[in-house]
Amino acid sequence: MKRVVILGSTGSIGRQALDVIRKLPGKFKVVGLAAGKNWHLLARQVREFRPDAAVLEREQELYNLRRELASDRPPDLAWGRSGLENLARLPQADIVLVAVAGALGIYPTIAAINAGKDVALANKETLVAAGHLVMELVARNKTALLPVDSEHSAIWQCLNGQERRAVEKVILTASGGPFRNFSKEEMENVTVDMALAHPNWQMGNKITIDSATLMNKGLEIIEAKWLFGVSYAQIEVVIHPQSIIHSAVEFLDGSIIAQMGLPDMRLPIQYALTYPERMPGCCSRLKLTCLQGLTFDAPDTDRFPSLKLAFEAGKTGGTMPAVLNAANEVAVDSFLKRRISFRAIPYIVGKVMEKHLTVKQPGLEEIMEADCWARKTGVALIKTLVTI
Amino acid sequence: MKRVVILGSTGSIGRQALDVIRKLPGKFKVVGLAAGKNWHLLARQVREFRPDAAVLEREQELYNLRRELASDRPPDLAWGRSGLENLARLPQADIVLVAVAGALGIYPTIAAINAGKDVALANKETLVAAGHLVMELVARNKTALLPVDSEHSAIWQCLNGQERRAVEKVILTASGGPFRNFSKEEMENVTVDMALAHPNWQMGNKITIDSATLMNKGLEIIEAKWLFGVSYAQIEVVIHPQSIIHSAVEFLDGSIIAQMGLPDMRLPIQYALTYPERMPGCCSRLKLTCLQGLTFDAPDTDRFPSLKLAFEAGKTGGTMPAVLNAANEVAVDSFLKRRISFRAIPYIVGKVMEKHLTVKQPGLEEIMEADCWARKTGVALIKTLVTI
Repeated sequence: MKRVVILGSTGSIGRQALDVIRKLPGKFKVVGLAAGKNWHLLARQVREFRPDAAVLEREQELYNLRRELASDRPPDLAWGRSGLENLARLPQADIVLVAVAGALGIYPTIAAINAGKDVALANKETLVAAGHLVMELVARNKTALLPVDSEHSAIWQCLNGQERRAVEKVILTASGGPFRNFSKEEMENVTVDMALAHPNWQMGNKITIDSATLMNKGLEIIEAKWLFGVSYAQIEVVIHPQSIIHSAVEFLDGSIIAQMGLPDMRLPIQYALTYPERMPGCCSRLKLTCLQGLTFDAPDTDRFPSLKLAFEAGKTGGTMPAVLNAANEVAVDSFLKRRISFRAIPYIVGKVMEKHLTVKQPGLEEIMEADCWARKTGVALIKTLVTI
Repeated sequence: MKRVVILGSTGSIGRQALDVIRKLPGKFKVVGLAAGKNWHLLARQVREFRPDAAVLEREQELYNLRRELASDRPPDLAWGRSGLENLARLPQADIVLVAVAGALGIYPTIAAINAGKDVALANKETLVAAGHLVMELVARNKTALLPVDSEHSAIWQCLNGQERRAVEKVILTASGGPFRNFSKEEMENVTVDMALAHPNWQMGNKITIDSATLMNKGLEIIEAKWLFGVSYAQIEVVIHPQSIIHSAVEFLDGSIIAQMGLPDMRLPIQYALTYPERMPGCCSRLKLTCLQGLTFDAPDTDRFPSLKLAFEAGKTGGTMPAVLNAANEVAVDSFLKRRISFRAIPYIVGKVMEKHLTVKQPGLEEIMEADCWARKTGVALIKTLVTI
């Protein structure tokens, strides 16, 4: 029985992780749950899974949770970053699923690694902004960093039992999003609703927009670089609109190993939690003969400049990937608030990157400063756009 | 440096194996070569690769070879089944590639396994007819049986580093051959030339016809059962006309791992020879973005009854798979000689199977008797068809 902590249990990944756990009775014990503000759902999860500890982002929601659970035997309750970090270090935990969104996910990830926990990582910012620091800690603490993203899980599955030095390249597939076939002109008039209608995956708003700009794939490139120890020249992005091949690895003999399945996040979540075992799960099954045909295209970085920006930020390294991510976050937020156009998102990211003076080999503090600077710079830039 | 014996060096697989070895200088030493009647080519191969021993099928061609090589320092020369078996046991050999065609390939395969050699197996009859015996010997001698067939190599690559008990099923892909979209009526009028025009693979005549009837896939089902220790219920055949996904494995969590590449036999040959390593090879590379689209269909056992016959023979077990194979061989031979129709091939195989009294748990001698009986019965049946 694996003892699991889930950070971000009320979000999309967290809820699906609990679904996986629910459907594998006797395999897992949930020992800790952390959420943001959704104390209602967290209360229900606490009643169902009976963790030893639960954490919320702020004191006011924790107060509500405490009152809600008063009649039960409540778990240890805490709030804020220190609560989150303590939960990540919970002595009785074997594995910590980090599914909190945003740059703050870096802190509990580092806490869990330093406490020798295996980490199932669903937080993108951790490796994008601080890959060099995190991978060093993973090596030093001899823990496992298990990818949860479907693409990275696919690559990880394809690398199973293969020599790392035999890897020629990793092939990250991308659905291409809803604007895959849009012309440059059509992309001028993209609305928020159009961008939120992802063809294959049900996800949160931010990541759905990132899918539409291909920034999502850009961030995954940087994550893949750290997770699999490859160079950027060894990473290829291929547009695969059906999202059936979740990613692949090409070996130096020319053999390509690919991982396939229906687009269902519970599969990579389950694999990260049950690794190194596989278990009969709750995922819907792919039947090859039901497919309409699988196609592959090269990405167009002219229409999707975010992908190029991500490669550039990754190759520059230092604080630049953190800046890419932070600038993108504020730009997407403004787009979702209908303050800027879809095409302005990569424009803002590129402009913020241009202004940034990269710090080489930054520590965590410098990364967080760069993140903060990029947000401010991005917001200022957006204001100039909006007032024009 | 691996020391290699190649049985069947002048055939399609043998020549491609030597091409692989030629392009990986310093990695292999060819210590033995065996061919059928093509002493001309064998002489050239001996001059190039300088093996310690060479074997031909018959004394008369060996005489020619001996004379041809007289001016050189010739290798040890021998002929016939005993020559082949001795070569398979060659003390200095590490690995024996069995690429001789026909049921006789069983003998040197067994000789090599009993001598503790790793065997790269390209001879279909060995596992089809004698799978239960061969797998027992492999286990007893703790040798490795390495598949060379592109489909089995694909499955084997997909199983790398995975727990065997996590396998839900193996998915064997089939191009479907040139008559994939033919109606039953159109298949009545199939000619030898039409059947020999395989859309994707360049192979020998017998195997090309087997591809067109899907008997090739039928034989592979039986081989897969033995190679991967799965039940027939765990084997699925999927028609994939582009021959890019060479086969796949579905795991019990629903994840499918597939192996992809251009149709080039040198890739699986090389992987069997270099295993467990991968090496930069001579194979042309697949570029996903150059593909026109990958499609998948369920096989139609009504138009392709050979596939159903093979499943039946496999499930019946005992001497029945040997009978299936032998009856198919004489039927295909008669078709190639334009004596029977394309549709008569599975008809004959089915009729011979109907007449057969299966011997359960047969020894090698009983298998060979069943093979012999099936050939005679098949030939007699063909005569009645031809005279009608």
